[in-house]
This record gives sequence, structure tokens and C-alpha cells, in this order.
Amino acid sequence: MHTRIGMAGLGIMGRGMANNLLRHGFAVSVWNRSPERAAEFSDRATVAKSPRELAASCSVVIGCVSDPPAVERVVFAEDGVLAGAQPGFRYVESSTVSSALTRRIAEAMRARGADALDAPVTGSKEAAEAGTLLFMTGGRQETHDELLSVLMAMGKKAIYCGESGQGSRMKLVGNTLISFMLEGLCEGLVAAAQGGLPTATVLEVIMASGFASPYFAFKGRALAEHDFAPHFALDLLVKDQTLMLAEASSLDVPMPGLSAIREVFRMAQARGYGRDDIAGVVRVLERAGESQTHQRS
Amino acid sequence: MHTRIGMAGLGIMGRGMANNLLRHGFAVSVWNRSPERAAEFSDRATVAKSPRELAASCSVVIGCVSDPPAVERVVFAEDGVLAGAQPGFRYVESSTVSSALTRRIAEAMRARGADALDAPVTGSKEAAEAGTLLFMTGGRQETHDELLSVLMAMGKKAIYCGESGQGSRMKLVGNTLISFMLEGLCEGLVAAAQGGLPTATVLEVIMASGFASPYFAFKGRALAEHDFAPHFALDLLVKDQTLMLAEASSLDVPMPGLSAIREVFRMAQARGYGRDDIAGVVRVLERAGESQTHQRS
Amino acid sequence: MHTRIGMAGLGIMGRGMANNLLRHGFAVSVWNRSPERAAEFSDRATVAKSPRELAASCSVVIGCVSDPPAVERVVFAEDGVLAGAQPGFRYVESSTVSSALTRRIAEAMRARGADALDAPVTGSKEAAEAGTLLFMTGGRQETHDELLSVLMAMGKKAIYCGESGQGSRMKLVGNTLISFMLEGLCEGLVAAAQGGLPTATVLEVIMASGFASPYFAFKGRALAEHDFAPHFALDLLVKDQTLMLAEASSLDVPMPGLSAIREVFRMAQARGYGRDDIAGVVRVLERAGESQTHQRS
Amino acid sequence: MHTRIGMAGLGIMGRGMANNLLRHGFAVSVWNRSPERAAEFSDRATVAKSPRELAASCSVVIGCVSDPPAVERVVFAEDGVLAGAQPGFRYVESSTVSSALTRRIAEAMRARGADALDAPVTGSKEAAEAGTLLFMTGGRQETHDELLSVLMAMGKKAIYCGESGQGSRMKLVGNTLISFMLEGLCEGLVAAAQGGLPTATVLEVIMASGFASPYFAFKGRALAEHDFAPHFALDLLVKDQTLMLAEASSLDVPMPGLSAIREVFRMAQARGYGRDDIAGVVRVLERAGESQTHQRS
Repeated sequence: MHTRIGMAGLGIMGRGMANNLLRHGFAVSVWNRSPERAAEFSDRATVAKSPRELAASCSVVIGCVSDPPAVERVVFAEDGVLAGAQPGFRYVESSTVSSALTRRIAEAMRARGADALDAPVTGSKEAAEAGTLLFMTGGRQETHDELLSVLMAMGKKAIYCGESGQGSRMKLVGNTLISFMLEGLCEGLVAAAQGGLPTATVLEVIMASGFASPYFAFKGRALAEHDFAPHFALDLLVKDQTLMLAEASSLDVPMPGLSAIREVFRMAQARGYGRDDIAGVVRVLERAGESQTHQRS
Repeated sequence: MHTRIGMAGLGIMGRGMANNLLRHGFAVSVWNRSPERAAEFSDRATVAKSPRELAASCSVVIGCVSDPPAVERVVFAEDGVLAGAQPGFRYVESSTVSSALTRRIAEAMRARGADALDAPVTGSKEAAEAGTLLFMTGGRQETHDELLSVLMAMGKKAIYCGESGQGSRMKLVGNTLISFMLEGLCEGLVAAAQGGLPTATVLEVIMASGFASPYFAFKGRALAEHDFAPHFALDLLVKDQTLMLAEASSLDVPMPGLSAIREVFRMAQARGYGRDDIAGVVRVLERAGESQTHQRS
Repeated sequence: MHTRIGMAGLGIMGRGMANNLLRHGFAVSVWNRSPERAAEFSDRATVAKSPRELAASCSVVIGCVSDPPAVERVVFAEDGVLAGAQPGFRYVESSTVSSALTRRIAEAMRARGADALDAPVTGSKEAAEAGTLLFMTGGRQETHDELLSVLMAMGKKAIYCGESGQGSRMKLVGNTLISFMLEGLCEGLVAAAQGGLPTATVLEVIMASGFASPYFAFKGRALAEHDFAPHFALDLLVKDQTLMLAEASSLDVPMPGLSAIREVFRMAQARGYGRDDIAGVVRVLERAGESQTHQRS
Repeated sequence: MHTRIGMAGLGIMGRGMANNLLRHGFAVSVWNRSPERAAEFSDRATVAKSPRELAASCSVVIGCVSDPPAVERVVFAEDGVLAGAQPGFRYVESSTVSSALTRRIAEAMRARGADALDAPVTGSKEAAEAGTLLFMTGGRQETHDELLSVLMAMGKKAIYCGESGQGSRMKLVGNTLISFMLEGLCEGLVAAAQGGLPTATVLEVIMASGFASPYFAFKGRALAEHDFAPHFALDLLVKDQTLMLAEASSLDVPMPGLSAIREVFRMAQARGYGRDDIAGVVRVLERAGESQTHQRS
């Protein structure tokens, strides 16, 4: 049904998603803030001059940009997606933003006879490339159903979470869990290493236990090697923690653990680690000049 | 080689462990502080009058009691295990205590020509009954090897962590991770529920994600049902968090996340939830008179 | 010069301020969202029907309401102060809000040839009544100087903090210090009382020490008597803590202590203490059914 | 009555205290772990070879050393104060230690017909030199009364806090308040400075407010000048925070604020600031390479 799909935002995730749409035979148009990245797709996809043009020429546009201001620009700017939305148009918001923002987008789209789905993803760059992302969606159930074939070109599963905003909220809850797991792993590994207990042994025990998780293996490897090349930039996780705490604040829910954890990440930012991978936060806990978790050969 | 094994402590874990030793054909002697529990084993095992008598009549004694003072009593009291230890005797400390205490036990045993292994376990009551516990051991490698057949009667795996104390330290690191995962799950589920996102949906997404863990399924169910019957008593986890923070303190390792999390659990204690399951901590986050995560039918 | 002063907001603080303006011989007009409170002033002051009418009939209007949405309404609503501001008009924002909001107000006033000063206050209800408030101002230095005689009718001192927004920021920093001092006092007094050290003795030592502060005497008395009648409502302090953390977030400054403290106050809100005095937070630390700091006679 | 007073420990505080005893006409004996410092007193005081000798030759000994292990050595070592204590002897513990330790000392002294008073002090090096310290005492009221003239030679006030241990507990509560006030000041000043609000203005407002304290002026000056020459070493405050949290833990009192604050100080230790003044903790909050609170001329 939807034969031309627009992709707004060609960062790490967006590129993988666009490639998978192409692989599944969809006609694809692309737009990116800096045109160089869009140009890389010019042999396989139509390059739009603006999100508005993208929306006007596609029946579905997927937005995947870095933060709320970028989403505001893509959707609500004069040449934004909203301005190009015709009745029947569908906008899929895959960026991680507040539930209030995705609700506002959905309302604006509906006022034009179009509709929007919040559909943030979880999964690494590798999952984006392999088409095995997990979508968590918010909006009308029928819009979720209608767009499922598009989502399934990019992911392995799409779980419907409820009305507009619930996909975004679910994503923030997910990144909350990631924050706890990573900070816990860092604190545990530094204490272990400082006490002479090898990182490899700790990871072996974790993976044999009832609290094992692929995430501990993934980040444990990065911590063991002190490899902080960004899979998920620390600055972006702090942004999500801040969005979650703001939602919790308006919902009157205390989040004492997340509040404490966010401050550790913010101290990492203050030390200049914001563009590193989130695992780089471990250095705030390590002694100056030492890398306790790093396993030297 | 070791044909009579003594079990000191017949709580939830100790009983399961003793039953599995019997099932594997070991001759078993038991001792428990309150004699009623020991009496339950009188048809299948010899009941000792004291840890000392247990040690004198067995080649291996396994201690599994609730906290450091109980361990002190079992090992160092006048009628304790140490007093009954002959050369060649082996003591296996399966209680969760500080690495300093298990090191002290090992030194005392070695001074008598005996030896000790710290071998705390992870796994539920069900795992203790099924004989599928995970042991993490500290002590001499050859003592670990020598006792492996005994441990394997009670567990599915025993991972050697290093010298005396490292098994205990590993256990504390493990309970650190459990603390983070549970607190993160509680904060996330309460925020989700308060925002209208169902607990079941959150758990479905978690279990489909890269940070899935059997632990989230296990505790998620308890939280969804507000079922706080104790698998792991909140008071005991606070004890372990306190031991971990004391170790971190002496190792000069900051643990800002665990410090914050421990205080949430301590506020739960102050409200009288110490004997409930650790999942009961969620009530500190919920609004008075409400149970947000509880899914009413 | 300024002979008719308008007061928008007749809460605890606003009433004291209006009374002091009258006492100093200023002609006063008043407006309050619920008209009953304004009516109490009808014999001494002119009652305006809207903030707009207030602005149109006064050369200076002072706003003192509870939170940012109330300020938005007073200033920016269709019948708000801004709509009634003539060239030369002065608006004094005495509510505690973000520096971004007071900057926005100043810009809007200046676009009309008027000007605004942020001038939040510190001091209790008693200080408002006695005219001994402390103002911290942000805006043009000459506007501060021009309005000094008005401010001095209500306070004992006005400290110029810098450009628009700096008065608001200073107030948030001040409430940050209050948050730390009160939480520290609560934690210290509960630990002392639980250990058998009387609250009165602790307060005597504090007041004799180098870290003495009138604030400890003031709140110490409330804690000793478990008197939580609101001088400063807990809900309002949480609002200010949240504004401060949002400013710190946009300034990239970690505030790990304030983050932790805010969560304690938020747990007090979750237990239903939001309308009590901020000292009521102590109950989150006390054991269920006990009041450790309360000195029984 | 007490004519020869022994001083065990001649650090920053001990020296000032010994000098004031001499100034008030007491005969003084001294002991210090490293004999050079004791030698500096050899023209005015008798130098003892051990704490035991000090106790044997004086009717009162005052101990003022850095931490619990040093106190254990001074009191309980073979050549310690206890070994030299005759019936009627008085030991005054002015070090900051746990209430459990000072209770243990008192019990040991009483078993020999002697007695001990816990009498930690608050006040700077300057106060020690000027003889204006504040003592907070624990023990028998009559022992407090008996020793008052000795204490008043060194201080301006001695407040009786209750039975043995309560002086120590009071001191830990005092250092808890200092921890909150300093961390709050640091967080507030960094946020202010980063937002363009000068440190001097913030300090002026604080000192004019109801939450003014000499302590804010004292540490505010150090922060404004980034002068971290040690008045109170960061390592020692962390030791006291840890003692307080251990007491709170055994008293079942949550201290979420202090827990969070201690971790900030511990991160400062990890960065190598342990021997600097406690105000040096501010650098954990500042951006790498910047000193926001430092007022450049």
C-alpha cells in the first residue's frame, strides 16, 4: 500500500533503516540536515530538499533525528513535514523524545487528516543495519497495524504500547533500565577490579547467573577493553535521562536511583566524555591515572 | 573421597542443599541453631549438637546462615566449627559475608592444618531445591578442585574467582547488580503505570530487547501482582549492600548509584517492609494508598 | 515618583507586601485571581478587575504568585500585565521562577517601551508583614535604582545581581541552600534522636558552633515540635528544586546533592505531605509510627 | 585539682590545645607518634615516651589524633593510656571517632577505677590556637563537671550531650551538617558562576539572608579564591561521613542526602584531592580545565 517511504535523518540509525527499506523493495526518498549524507543515497533514492518536500512526495515519512529541537525542526518548521502532510499521510517518529512532544505531533497531523505514530527503536547500529530493531509504538492501533509492513522491513518486532506518546514513554523507560544496568556494571566492575577480582571472572559469573543479560556481555566487553567508541553517545543518554525525569516529575513519581545515576553521567560530561560511548562513564569512578577495569594483556 | 558432609544452617537455602547432598548419596550430618529444623532431617541424617561436633564428625562442613554475626557464631564460638576442625578438614562458607571475614576464616582453618573455601551461591529457593545453584568460590585452586564434586551435588556450576575472599566479593558484586536491576525496574514500572503504560507491555518490551534478563521476568511478575512473599528478604539485601559499600570504602571506590539505591531500601525498612521480598521496595515510590504497578483484573 | 503601585497576587507574601506599601504612603491597587482576597483590601486600595487593568492604572506592578504557569497568566494572558503596559511602565517579578521566564518578561516589556525587574524575595511570612524582606534583583541597574524606594517599603535590603534573570537564578541558588540545610538538619536530628541524643542538645551545639545559622534555630524548633503548619509549602520547594535542576542541566552543571535531596522531598509528596511545611519532609526518614525528633513533654 | 595534664597527639589541633593548657598555668606532658613534634615542646613540657608513661604521670590525658586506628593505638596498645591508668585517672577523647569506640574506652577505664569523657571539638586551627573551641561531651555528668576547668582552658564552651558516646555522636552529626552546607554551597556557586552570577554576589545575598552562617562566609572565601590549603582535610571528612553512615545504619536511620554527598567527596578522593581542604570537592563539579567559582582579578 505505502510504496514510497521518506526517511528524514540519516544518522547511524537512519542510514541502516533506509537501507533496509530499499532492500525490501520500497521506493525511498531521503532528507538530511547536512546534504552530504543524503547525497550518498542519490543513486538509490530520491533526495528531497526539505522535510516538507519529503512529506509531499511520500505516503509515509519516518523521522529519526537526535533530539527534541531537531524533531521540532523536522516536523514544525515552515518547510517541515507537517506543512507537506496531505490527508492520509503517515508520519512515524522514531526519535527518542518526550511523550508530550509525540502527542503534540499526532494531534497536529490529525488536524490535517493525516496521522502519526511514535515508534522509537531499541537496538544497536548493527541491529539497524541487519533490520532487527525492536519498535515500541504509540498511536491509534489501526495506524500501527497499517504501518506494520513498513516497520517490519526495518525491525524484527513492533510492540503496540497504547495511545500517542506511549511509545516514547516506553523508550524512556527502556533507557532508564539501560542506565541502571550500565551504572551498576561499572560500579561493580571497578570495585571488583580494585579488589583484585578480574573483570573476565565477574562477567563469566554474571552470564551464568539468573540476572544474566546480553547487555552485560555487550557493555562488559567494552569496559574490559576500555573501548569507548560511541555506539550510544553519553550526551544522548543524559538527554533521555533528563526527559524521563521530567516525565516522572510531572507524573509525581520519585526516581531516586535514576536521579543519582544521571548525576554520575553529568559528571562524565563535565570531564569531557559526552561524545564517547555511555560506557565511558566508568572513568568517573576510577582513580586518576588508572584504568581498573581494563584488562592488560 | 569426602563421604560425610555436614550442613550448618537449615534455612531456605540450607535445606535444599542438604536434600541434594542426600540425593547424591552423601552421608549427611546437620546442625541448626533452632533444633526443630534439624529434627526434620533426623530420619535421613545425623543431627549434631553443635557446629564443633559437626566438624569433628565430618570431613567437610558447609555453612549457610543469614549474616556475619551468625557466621562468627558458627565458626568461632567455643563450640564452633573451628574448634572441631582436624588437619585435612574442609569448611565451605556459603553465607554472604564480607571478603575480610572469609579470609579470616581461611587463615584460622589453615593454622590448624585444615582449609576453607568461600563459596556463596546465587539462585533462588527453587534452584537450591533443584540443585541448580551457581557457586562462586574463593580460596586455593586445589581446594576448589577437591570440593567440586560436593558443590556439583548442589549446583550446576562453580566458578573459581581467586584467593580467599574473592568468592565473597563476587557475591557482593552480584547482589549489587541485582540491586540496580530491581530498583531500575521499580522506578521504570511505577513511572510507566502512573503514565498509563501497562506493566505487562513494559515487561513484554524488556524481554524482547537487548537488555532482557530472566531477572526482569521474575521480579516483573512479582511487581505486577504486588506479591511480596519473601524469596530474598529486603533486610538481607540491605545487609549485603552495606557490606559492599564498606568494601568499596576500604578500596577507595565510589559507588554513587548503589549508595542512593541502598537508601531507598532503607526507607522501605523504616516503613516496616524489611521482612518482605526485596520487590516490596516499590511501595516507597508509589503514592500513598495506591499500587500503580499492580494490574487489577 | 511612582505614586500608584499595583500588587498582583495576594497570597501570604503579597498581602504583607501590599500592607507595607500602604504603610509607606503609596497609593495601591490590587488584583488577585480569587476576588475574595482582593475584596479584603477594598477599603484601603483600588481593586482591579484584571492584571491588564492593574498595569494600565499603575506606574509599577509587582507580581507575586505561586508558580510559572501563574506568572504566565498574570503577564502574558490577553488581559495580562503586558497588555496594559504603557511606555515607562515597570513590572517587578517577585515570584520564584526560572531565569529564562524573567528574561522573556523583560524582553516583552522592553519591546513596549516598558521595563521589568526580577526581584524575588527571601524571608518568611513574618518578614513580609514586618517589611524586612531581602530582594535579589535582575535587570537594568538603572531600573533597580529607580525602583529601590518601592522595594525598600517592603524589605530591608535589595541586592543587585546582574542582568535580567540573575535575580531569579539567585533565588533558586538560595532555595538550593535551604534544601541542603533542611535535609541535613532532618537527617542529623533523626539519627541523633534515634541514638538517644536529644534534639534540644543538638540544636544548642549547632547554635554555638561555627556553622550556626538562624535557619537551623527556626526549622529546628519546627522539627522538635513536629509542627508542620506551612511557612513554605513542600510542593513549592520541590517546584524550585526542579527549576534549579533544569537550569543546572542547561548549564551543564552536575548537582548530585540537590538531585538526591529533591527525591527525598518527592517521596514526601508521594506520601501526601506536599501542602505541609517543608520541615514535614522529616517523616520520610522516621520509622513508621514513630516521631523521633519530636520531644515529648 | 588536676595539675598535670597530658596531651597525646600534637597535630594542628593538639598543638593549639597544649599551648592553651600551658598558657592557663597547667603543668603539661606531651606525647606524639613522631617524636619531632613532641620535641618542639621540650622547653615547656615533659615529653613522655609512650601514652602509658603519659597516663602514669598525669591525672588527666587528652587524646587528639586523626582516626579510629590511631585512637586504638593510643588507648589500647600495650604501652597505651589504658595500661598506665590508675584509679581516679581521667581520659578525655577529643578525636572524632564512633560512639561505639568512645563507649568502649569509657568501659575499659571504669573497669580500672578510672573514667573517660568523649569530648570532640568543633572549630578551626585558629580556634584551637585562640582557645575558643567548642567541646561536646559524653560520659558521666560529674566527670564533665570535674574536667570543665581543663576544657575551659582550651575552649569557650563545653556542652554536655549525655552518656558515653553521645559526644562522639554529636560531633558526627555536626560534621554531617558541614557536609551538607559545603556541598550545597559548592553546587550553588558552580551553577551561579556558570550562569554568569558572580560568586561575591551570591555570598553577599547568603550573608544577608535568614540562612546566613559564618561557615558560608569562611568556605565561600576559599571557594572564591580556589584556595584549598587544608583547614580540614577531605580524607578526614570522608572518614567522619563513613562513621556517621555506619551509625545510621546500625540505628536503622536512612540518610539519603549524606549518602549522595559522601560519594561526591569520594569521587574527589579518586581524583587525588584527599589531602586538600574539604572545599576542594568543588572541582568534581566544575568543567574540565575550568574553575567557575574562581574570581579572576
